[in-house]
Amino acid sequence: MATNERYSPKGGAERGLINIIKVGGGVVEDAASLASLLSQFAEMKGRKVLVHGGGRLATSMAASLGIESHVVGGRRITDEKMLQVVTMVYGGLVNKNIVAGLQAKGVKAIGLTGADGNVIRSHKRPPKRVRMDDGTEQTVDFGFVGDVDRVDAQLLSSLIESGNVPVIAPLTHDGEGHILNTNADTIAASVACALAELYDVTLTFCFEKPGVLRNADDDSSIIPCIDEEQARTLIAEGVIAGGMIPKIENAFDAIHRGVRQVVITHSDNIDGSRGTTIKGY
Amino acid sequence: MATNERYSPKGGAERGLINIIKVGGGVVEDAASLASLLSQFAEMKGRKVLVHGGGRLATSMAASLGIESHVVGGRRITDEKMLQVVTMVYGGLVNKNIVAGLQAKGVKAIGLTGADGNVIRSHKRPPKRVRMDDGTEQTVDFGFVGDVDRVDAQLLSSLIESGNVPVIAPLTHDGEGHILNTNADTIAASVACALAELYDVTLTFCFEKPGVLRNADDDSSIIPCIDEEQARTLIAEGVIAGGMIPKIENAFDAIHRGVRQVVITHSDNIDGSRGTTIKGY
Repeated sequence: MATNERYSPKGGAERGLINIIKVGGGVVEDAASLASLLSQFAEMKGRKVLVHGGGRLATSMAASLGIESHVVGGRRITDEKMLQVVTMVYGGLVNKNIVAGLQAKGVKAIGLTGADGNVIRSHKRPPKRVRMDDGTEQTVDFGFVGDVDRVDAQLLSSLIESGNVPVIAPLTHDGEGHILNTNADTIAASVACALAELYDVTLTFCFEKPGVLRNADDDSSIIPCIDEEQARTLIAEGVIAGGMIPKIENAFDAIHRGVRQVVITHSDNIDGSRGTTIKGY
Repeated sequence: MATNERYSPKGGAERGLINIIKVGGGVVEDAASLASLLSQFAEMKGRKVLVHGGGRLATSMAASLGIESHVVGGRRITDEKMLQVVTMVYGGLVNKNIVAGLQAKGVKAIGLTGADGNVIRSHKRPPKRVRMDDGTEQTVDFGFVGDVDRVDAQLLSSLIESGNVPVIAPLTHDGEGHILNTNADTIAASVACALAELYDVTLTFCFEKPGVLRNADDDSSIIPCIDEEQARTLIAEGVIAGGMIPKIENAFDAIHRGVRQVVITHSDNIDGSRGTTIKGY
């Protein structure tokens, strides 16, 4: 893939480019938006990895099974029954339908959870102090939720260099026989940072907005490019606010850990032709 | 893995040995028998592949979701809702728990459906004439059921030679974006026959009996070894009867397609130390 190579000041040698695309549950649960995603992803040239969520589908499947979803401080509690549901929905239903859909478009997709090939090892999150809606703090056990310890970039790279395209479900394992539910943004960032040892990585987070907006009510007010200093200014001015702040913080965290650029965009633009690009200095 | 190599008259050169183990739904749905299976499988030396079923778990999950299981002439009909269930249960719940369980025992397991890496391509079974319980015949559309066309032995071999252990769920795909429900025995036999191009294959079918019995009521009456001529005699004598006949026929079919030996045994003996070994002439 000579056209994907470029001179990199980091390694002093040719390093390949790779795109890590993260799409949320909202995209994968809707047939039309999933079809659009698969077409766009299939058309992307070069090395690529897809990381998917599926939270809403898990919630509705749990409801169909009469399992209550417990959410504390905005975060889902994964008890044993909910772990079964997410293992089925993320690892089975969503992952395999994406893989089959991509195969139909000529993409040699291979579905993975963190357990497969031991590719993402995590540990069960210990109980944490969480701020509740009423302002009080409480110690919460999130259950079978995994915080990522290690991604096997070599295994991913060996699959990718053999022409495979990893499609990663938001599930990891603890090495002791337990599957753990893991945030898809975290998986995407961890995979991107691990692959940054080997490649020049572009990490793209797709969400329901076309990028970071100057005016939240105006989808055309996309800020095309932000560096860390500009981000601080925009946060101080209140332009970047609310749920966008952790997204931006996660983006710079990935940049500090070696990712070349992070793109925040709508799932209709996974090639990053529109959206906000976040770069280091 | 020099200890696994032996002289093979087929290739005239050293060929590696490989074990393909097929376990049914009854084993994987029971925690104790699953734990025993994983321990035995982890202890097996050399190249190995695990193919699992999961039918009963799918039936109970479907029941929990209020989805009726339709069975005609002893075979399940896979309608769209049942396809969702088997994709979740086989590809997610069962496959990922086996993979995580094997990882905990130091086995670098990697879960696959036929869609992953395009490893098993199939086509949707056309409606078939089926003999009903009342003796009449009827044309039955089995729905989203796949008949295997092709197994990518090269991909499996490349994973295996890199130290991975494929764990294959009974799901395939048609290359047009559809997952198809596929009989686990058929998957195991197809994988074994494809790998027979590259390896000396032992295919082991685990079931609830310790092997082919001379007396169905006496578990100690195992027939240790059967060739095709003996099998014909035993069938003519009525010693091999009922559901064992198609098992034996499938075994000889695999032998004719290049598999070195087929073992029929209990899931407590996946190493084939007890059980019935079926060989060519």
